Amino acid sequence: MRILTQKRFLLALVVIAAYMVCGLSFGSDVEVVDTMTVAEETAHDDDSGHGGPVLGILISLVVILLAAKLGGDIFERFQQPAVLGELVLGMLIGNLHLIGIDLFESFKHDLTLEVLAELGVIILLFEVGLESSVREMMKVGLASFMVAVFGVITPFFLGWGVGYVFLPDASIYVHIFIGATLTATSVGITARVLQDIGKIKSREAKIILGAAVIDDILGLVILAVVAGIITAVGSGHGDGVSSGMILWIIIKAVLFVVGAIVIGSIILPTYFNLAIRLKVKGVFLSFCLLVCFALAFIAGKVGLAPIVGAFAAGLILDEIHYTRFREKGERDIKHLIEPISVFLVPIFFVRMGMMVDLTTFGRVEILGFAAVLTLAAIVSKQACSLAIFDRKTNRIAIGLGMIPRGEVGLIFAGIGAKLILDGQPIVSASIYSAIVIMVIITTLVTPPALKASLLRGAKNAPAPS
Amino acid sequence: MRILTQKRFLLALVVIAAYMVCGLSFGSDVEVVDTMTVAEETAHDDDSGHGGPVLGILISLVVILLAAKLGGDIFERFQQPAVLGELVLGMLIGNLHLIGIDLFESFKHDLTLEVLAELGVIILLFEVGLESSVREMMKVGLASFMVAVFGVITPFFLGWGVGYVFLPDASIYVHIFIGATLTATSVGITARVLQDIGKIKSREAKIILGAAVIDDILGLVILAVVAGIITAVGSGHGDGVSSGMILWIIIKAVLFVVGAIVIGSIILPTYFNLAIRLKVKGVFLSFCLLVCFALAFIAGKVGLAPIVGAFAAGLILDEIHYTRFREKGERDIKHLIEPISVFLVPIFFVRMGMMVDLTTFGRVEILGFAAVLTLAAIVSKQACSLAIFDRKTNRIAIGLGMIPRGEVGLIFAGIGAKLILDGQPIVSASIYSAIVIMVIITTLVTPPALKASLLRGAKNAPAPS
Repeated sequence: MRILTQKRFLLALVVIAAYMVCGLSFGSDVEVVDTMTVAEETAHDDDSGHGGPVLGILISLVVILLAAKLGGDIFERFQQPAVLGELVLGMLIGNLHLIGIDLFESFKHDLTLEVLAELGVIILLFEVGLESSVREMMKVGLASFMVAVFGVITPFFLGWGVGYVFLPDASIYVHIFIGATLTATSVGITARVLQDIGKIKSREAKIILGAAVIDDILGLVILAVVAGIITAVGSGHGDGVSSGMILWIIIKAVLFVVGAIVIGSIILPTYFNLAIRLKVKGVFLSFCLLVCFALAFIAGKVGLAPIVGAFAAGLILDEIHYTRFREKGERDIKHLIEPISVFLVPIFFVRMGMMVDLTTFGRVEILGFAAVLTLAAIVSKQACSLAIFDRKTNRIAIGLGMIPRGEVGLIFAGIGAKLILDGQPIVSASIYSAIVIMVIITTLVTPPALKASLLRGAKNAPAPS
Repeated sequence: MRILTQKRFLLALVVIAAYMVCGLSFGSDVEVVDTMTVAEETAHDDDSGHGGPVLGILISLVVILLAAKLGGDIFERFQQPAVLGELVLGMLIGNLHLIGIDLFESFKHDLTLEVLAELGVIILLFEVGLESSVREMMKVGLASFMVAVFGVITPFFLGWGVGYVFLPDASIYVHIFIGATLTATSVGITARVLQDIGKIKSREAKIILGAAVIDDILGLVILAVVAGIITAVGSGHGDGVSSGMILWIIIKAVLFVVGAIVIGSIILPTYFNLAIRLKVKGVFLSFCLLVCFALAFIAGKVGLAPIVGAFAAGLILDEIHYTRFREKGERDIKHLIEPISVFLVPIFFVRMGMMVDLTTFGRVEILGFAAVLTLAAIVSKQACSLAIFDRKTNRIAIGLGMIPRGEVGLIFAGIGAKLILDGQPIVSASIYSAIVIMVIITTLVTPPALKASLLRGAKNAPAPS
């Protein structure tokens, strides 16, 4: 029986492979069918169907979805979160060029794939936000705030110290900047792990997610201050950063959060009561997506991460707003969003893995500093657990959940690479590489550590209320 | 009560508008927060989150989804299919620049939006394919084949004749080419109308969809022949089109169709039996999407429209392949695909409307020829109804359903514009504009005509078996 299945499996693989190869070779068979090449070029110009830019995305999606599911499965079998499998298989695919296979290199520079990935993480945070409400977040508000503050201050000073000790020849601005790159948590990975292991509604999840929002606002302020100071020093006059400017950044961010809550309590009921009058199919899902995309857009415009907006959108959408849709037999938004999430979310994580350049780890001269920096990044976020006084909460898990650094750290590093002081960039190529390694490792260690901590916690501790 | 609702509505609108304007003005407030501009630029370079290319897509999606639902609703109230409303609101948005509002101009040239739109129509045809099966299509196979053949030959010769009569000074190749541009039906609009009015499982729907597949293959052959002949004449030697080349095109297309059916009956059961062993969530939907995207990709590679591949994928996926998934409590694929379709499909139709350039209709000198060409395009496809001998089938509806011309006609026209004969392009700028007008009008007249015919047919004729 088992052998039979394997035989059929092999047969299936051979036929599929032959079919795909035929498809590929047909396409490249330019000599034989040269009018078709004309057609394809024209199709591209006229942006119409036959063989246009969509073909590149279709094959990327096939590779990515397959890698995501296979990677997820392999890692689940080893009791690891599926997201780690998506990252690792992405890393493998993204580095196949090192052994001469550069079939997938184009995926990395595909702007459309990048946008699909970003939409994926926006949908993920929207989905995660739907699992909670503003009221529930308010309950953990103080805890979240403390976690965010501890989780920003400690990495900042520890990073500064690491710079001071290990790069004694560099200026104080370099040290400060290294501290700044360690501050902001990238919550996508943590959210996904919490979802994978079914802990997204736990108290720990709420504290981490709330802290991530505040963390993002604090990160904005630090970026403005640090980059402002260095620009001012570099240009020789001291007005690079004004208190007015920083105040404005804070006001915008706070206005966004307050605005989102106002929309949730005052506008949304009317919004859905108007929407229900529309006589077309898909109105409910469309109007929920509208809230998500609009808030993600505005968050991006005020300088926050779009995922903060998507999370806020999920929070403010409450069953009470759309009871009339539910009475009409509409499925719950959580069920409606799930297929979109299954489609788009893996693109983000597989692509994140693909962007990892393994050759960075081959640069022996920077590995030492990278290791110290990574250690500082991981250890310093454990200060977050000190902000939790409630004994029922798994504080270790909160410290672990705050570990991942991502795009914000890389944005800081990128800005630092462009800031020139005394003829040299603040963030040199070596420091940049060390920061990249730090981002990769913090991303990869979080899923197994967080899963282990939360599942052990669930056994030993009393059940969360 | 009613007044109260309207007051609240106005309040809601004002608050939302103020909020959006704040978001927009925050973003453009470069002077105040110039470090954020640095951050956004870097974000773009490093392809990370904060304010990257995803923001442009987010606001496009907000505008498009809103336009789609409002447009759909307005037209539904006038007993018109929702898709016509999406097209018309898209046209309005896309031509606002004529009255000085060019806020939405960037949408037209956004490659990512184009790809999302293409994914939308691919998902639509996949969804439509799921409503039927290979066996059911076989039953209408002969009818579909006859409809396709009639629906290609008649427009070809009528278009040729129109060229001969109205452009007497042009060469015979111009006349032939005009005939060729009228041949291929663009089935997206028709599929959507059939879905909107709940007739997607009717016999008429199956005949039209089957005919569209064959029509696409015939279109490929005609394109190869006509372009080949003209290239040969232009370059002065007669080997531009060989029978071997045409044979190769036909073989590829037929191989694709046969290959898809083989995959359906032999590979898919094993494929899903393997997939069910994967221990991650979303496996079922992912593996269905894999089939859709892979077949759409291969179809594009053999020169067919990717939507033909997506339709084939929907046809070959049968409940019998995934009974084990259903036994595990998985929802049916038709339900799982629906939210993705609600999200992506309107992007295609609203964008299609946006790409319509209304100034084309202001060119009085070409309107006469455009009118004749459009009439020829509409009338000639009515020959399709002659291919139907079965009295229970609504033949008028089939003729109407085959009317829309789309990307293939434009691809032909684009190729013609690049083919030079005696120093002049085969398709002049005026002829090109006339073809564009023909595409627009055939697209816009089909939804109301098809809906009226099918709904009247349902009243008068006996119910379809």
